[in-house]
Amino acid sequence: MLIVGELINTSRKAIKPAVEGRDAEFIKDIAQKQVDAGADYVDVNCGTMVFNEPETMAWLVETIQEKVQAPLCIDSPNPKALEVGLSLAKYGQPMINSITAEKERFETILPLVTKYKAKIVALCMDDSGMPETAEDRLRIAKRLVQDLTAAGIPEDDIYLDPLVKPISTGDRAGMEVLETIYGIKALYPKVHGICGLSNISYGLPNRKVLNQAFMIQTMTMGMDAYILDPLDKTMMGFVYASQALLGKDEFCMKYLTAHRNGLYETA
Amino acid sequence: MLIVGELINTSRKAIKPAVEGRDAEFIKDIAQKQVDAGADYVDVNCGTMVFNEPETMAWLVETIQEKVQAPLCIDSPNPKALEVGLSLAKYGQPMINSITAEKERFETILPLVTKYKAKIVALCMDDSGMPETAEDRLRIAKRLVQDLTAAGIPEDDIYLDPLVKPISTGDRAGMEVLETIYGIKALYPKVHGICGLSNISYGLPNRKVLNQAFMIQTMTMGMDAYILDPLDKTMMGFVYASQALLGKDEFCMKYLTAHRNGLYETA
Repeated sequence: MLIVGELINTSRKAIKPAVEGRDAEFIKDIAQKQVDAGADYVDVNCGTMVFNEPETMAWLVETIQEKVQAPLCIDSPNPKALEVGLSLAKYGQPMINSITAEKERFETILPLVTKYKAKIVALCMDDSGMPETAEDRLRIAKRLVQDLTAAGIPEDDIYLDPLVKPISTGDRAGMEVLETIYGIKALYPKVHGICGLSNISYGLPNRKVLNQAFMIQTMTMGMDAYILDPLDKTMMGFVYASQALLGKDEFCMKYLTAHRNGLYETA
Repeated sequence: MLIVGELINTSRKAIKPAVEGRDAEFIKDIAQKQVDAGADYVDVNCGTMVFNEPETMAWLVETIQEKVQAPLCIDSPNPKALEVGLSLAKYGQPMINSITAEKERFETILPLVTKYKAKIVALCMDDSGMPETAEDRLRIAKRLVQDLTAAGIPEDDIYLDPLVKPISTGDRAGMEVLETIYGIKALYPKVHGICGLSNISYGLPNRKVLNQAFMIQTMTMGMDAYILDPLDKTMMGFVYASQALLGKDEFCMKYLTAHRNGLYETA
């Protein structure tokens, strides 16, 4: 299981002013809290800073690393911002979020993946646009795995993101993702599945309940990485509970440790 | 989805004295509350009343039916108690809990299933005892489906219970159940899967979290009936959320209705 802490993202209301005002203590504090809460990677996304994204990325990466020594997930559609972030990331193996099967994007991002020996989040989309069905997603997933491994990327460094759409836009939206991840793990047991969770519940009430249930459902089908808010204790509690139930937590040790650390509120 | 409300069971601390004291209002109230909360069937179990189980069963069934018109799940290992309960159950199609593949029990219970055209909970155990692996469970499940359908029971009336053991006794305990239900639905799409949820978490802290996650996991693999406490709002909320995510709730109507009825606490 790999958890990417999603909070340092300038599209978030609480983050944007702190980044614009270069409030280093605020950013360091959020980075530390995410790592303390169980994040394996800290996502860094300043994609909304369209006029100075590379410079902002540099400041964020350096600021975060003054406080925490976790590896970073450098998250941007902009190759210049990615390169700056990757060149400064100094702890562990970096992660890039993201590549796609779109021809231009694939060719632009691939050299960064190989240069920095990064883990790579690969979105199941190509030049024909967003996929509808699990079949569409699996076709793109196969092409991504083939092209990435042909370029020397180990399967274990590939994190396929099936692209989650809201069930409010179509009853089958969740099933398409579940069938995709099942298909990916059947074809490539070493390749990972990753996703964010909040899209699934867009437009519906009680979104947290849907997000939690969808995390458990996707993990049951083989998903093994999530981009989420690790400060959400209920969500993290369900991550450990699901792992234990799936037989991936020997003697429930991580679950019991989480309990002792007060992750679960006692009812 | 079929929900069997489990609360009227004399092994429960709050129920036993009410049944012993023939407190009809108390029992009626619990029956009504379960139906109001979404139970499709009301379970009736007085198996702890070893000296007068049939008489107690009769009182319970008649008392419940003075208040609610839901079908009942007559729950006992004692054929005499089952027969009394079934003979008095008058609303809808009754359910029997349970038959097994044990030779004597199968032969004793089968005539009741056919006589009362009941839905039947069939436990995956035989004369060799409690199964360990999914393979063991599937072997017994096949035999149960074959023998029950040979006796004229429709597949749609069969509810296979894989038998849930605690993950505290073995890391694979959850996976064996998940693989069993997947296998059952692959072989017999019309046959149902049913289980209770509390065994899975026995011996561990924060049991509710594990029970909720296991409900979602099993439903993802095809389980479509549960014996649970329908007054547990969080659990019922996850039932509706999971159904919506699995594409089994057109336009999320049941989920939205549950929301409007205040099933979810707003966070």
